[in-house]
Amino acid sequence: MLAVFGHLNPDTDAITAALVYARLLTRQDIEAQAYRLGDLNFETAFVLREAGVEAPPLLETLPSGTAVALVDHNESAQSLPNLSELTVTRVVDHHKLGDLSTAQPPYLRFEPVGSTGTILLKLFREAGLAVEPLEARLMLSAILSDTLHFRSPTTTADDQEAVAFLAPVAGIEDVTAYALAMFAAKSDLGDTPAETLLRMDYKVFPFGEVTAPQQWGLGVIETTNPGYVFGRQAELLAAMDAVKAEDRLNGVLLSVVDILNETNRTLVLSATEDKVLREVFGAAVSGQVADLGARISRKKQLVPALETYFTPQN
Amino acid sequence: MLAVFGHLNPDTDAITAALVYARLLTRQDIEAQAYRLGDLNFETAFVLREAGVEAPPLLETLPSGTAVALVDHNESAQSLPNLSELTVTRVVDHHKLGDLSTAQPPYLRFEPVGSTGTILLKLFREAGLAVEPLEARLMLSAILSDTLHFRSPTTTADDQEAVAFLAPVAGIEDVTAYALAMFAAKSDLGDTPAETLLRMDYKVFPFGEVTAPQQWGLGVIETTNPGYVFGRQAELLAAMDAVKAEDRLNGVLLSVVDILNETNRTLVLSATEDKVLREVFGAAVSGQVADLGARISRKKQLVPALETYFTPQN
Ligand SMILES: [Mn+2]
Ligand SMILES: [Mn+2]
Repeated sequence: MLAVFGHLNPDTDAITAALVYARLLTRQDIEAQAYRLGDLNFETAFVLREAGVEAPPLLETLPSGTAVALVDHNESAQSLPNLSELTVTRVVDHHKLGDLSTAQPPYLRFEPVGSTGTILLKLFREAGLAVEPLEARLMLSAILSDTLHFRSPTTTADDQEAVAFLAPVAGIEDVTAYALAMFAAKSDLGDTPAETLLRMDYKVFPFGEVTAPQQWGLGVIETTNPGYVFGRQAELLAAMDAVKAEDRLNGVLLSVVDILNETNRTLVLSATEDKVLREVFGAAVSGQVADLGARISRKKQLVPALETYFTPQN
Repeated sequence: MLAVFGHLNPDTDAITAALVYARLLTRQDIEAQAYRLGDLNFETAFVLREAGVEAPPLLETLPSGTAVALVDHNESAQSLPNLSELTVTRVVDHHKLGDLSTAQPPYLRFEPVGSTGTILLKLFREAGLAVEPLEARLMLSAILSDTLHFRSPTTTADDQEAVAFLAPVAGIEDVTAYALAMFAAKSDLGDTPAETLLRMDYKVFPFGEVTAPQQWGLGVIETTNPGYVFGRQAELLAAMDAVKAEDRLNGVLLSVVDILNETNRTLVLSATEDKVLREVFGAAVSGQVADLGARISRKKQLVPALETYFTPQN
């Protein structure tokens, strides 16, 4: 039985990709079970509720040597703590390749597209399998979520073609209305504790491994209601300070992405982050908020620039 | 212009995969140029001569930051010396994943099949492109070469299906006769210097990285005429001794694979290799030759066992 899971602090792509890939493998006579590595965010809870599907079970540990399939991630810092002791036989992902290695030839499918869902649809087609309505709804939700309904610069023609194909199969007539409902669910943060907000869509990246290794924590809150988030700025800064110590980070950033206006204003904890944001992005900083303009993609616009900054070329 | 190349000490799969993948990318409007990282072996020279195609140009270095596509390998020890400074945008491979990482999301296509050629055929099909006779001949040659015409335990049903599909497209009526002609060309070693023989199909592997890092050089001579090779045993052992020093290795092995009888007899340089071969494979050793039985696949039968041996689990 192959265990299939997405990254820690799962988003809609991580959860739905685990569910869909486990179904695809099962339909190809490979026994597979989907798991999640953390709590659902509000958007994902909405998506699963609308789809009428249960969340996959929470996974906290696996015995050494267990065969696993990773979806929507590949770096050990974003996976089960003992990933290096597990046997990774499959990865379907759309992120940069990190520190993964394997003892045997694996099945790897990485494409630089907007969402793991887009790659999964290709796998259905290549296998000659018809996409069922539930599977279509889950893949479509993942693509809309990861690309912010095609607003993100990570969006490709493949993502748009996939949504156009999947919407009628899923029985979703108005994709725009469905995407807005997803984003509204995600933005309805209620009285979620500040540290939970910070960790909801949060990844730790090792930078500058060659020269001076650094660990940075990068949180993102994608919302249609940034005013709510900035209303809790003091609490969030306190949470960032705590997380920086807990996770032994060199820096921590929390980007508040206004989905509908496509802007990124990032909370600035200390002089360290202030300097980096000014030097890497030429950001104007005032009142502990850095204006990162239209850089709404952590993967495509923040991480590569930080990686380059911390890895001086010789 | 994307530079496409296979591993150092190229074999037929490495050379033909570079040629075929560059053609496939070009047909998809991605400018690409095939290269090789070393001299052709006799089998590959035969394959290209029969196909009426020139060898790709030799590549010794590329400027930092150049975009490259790797085929039939992914580890830095088997690639251009400055691989870590190049921008790997694509990999098509059927080996274990080594030390590769990328700064941006790459296109990766790894499958645990017998040959890169088998994966390339899938890419043609997925792109909806008809395979041309030359492309078919090159992919078919790669599959026959890497799987020793289906004798290797790395062979999968996909490889066999690919050859059945490709043979008529390539205009090859008698696949068995063509494979025997390839293996005969490979076995006609003439007065090739001993070090050249050792390095013809030779890869360096880092083992036991976590605990006690080791570098081992693993050469293979696949031949229909093992008697010829063992007739030069003293010369080959001297070459192994020289290469062990040159490449700063902890151990060096040269496996003589009898293609038609499917056996592996491996030359044993010193007490170090003797101990490892006895402990890992339970091999009987006499006269500096270890009997490795039917272990004819370096990738599937030698490397994983050595990796496990040098990486004690906690
Ligand atoms: Mn994703
Ligand atoms: Mn190969």
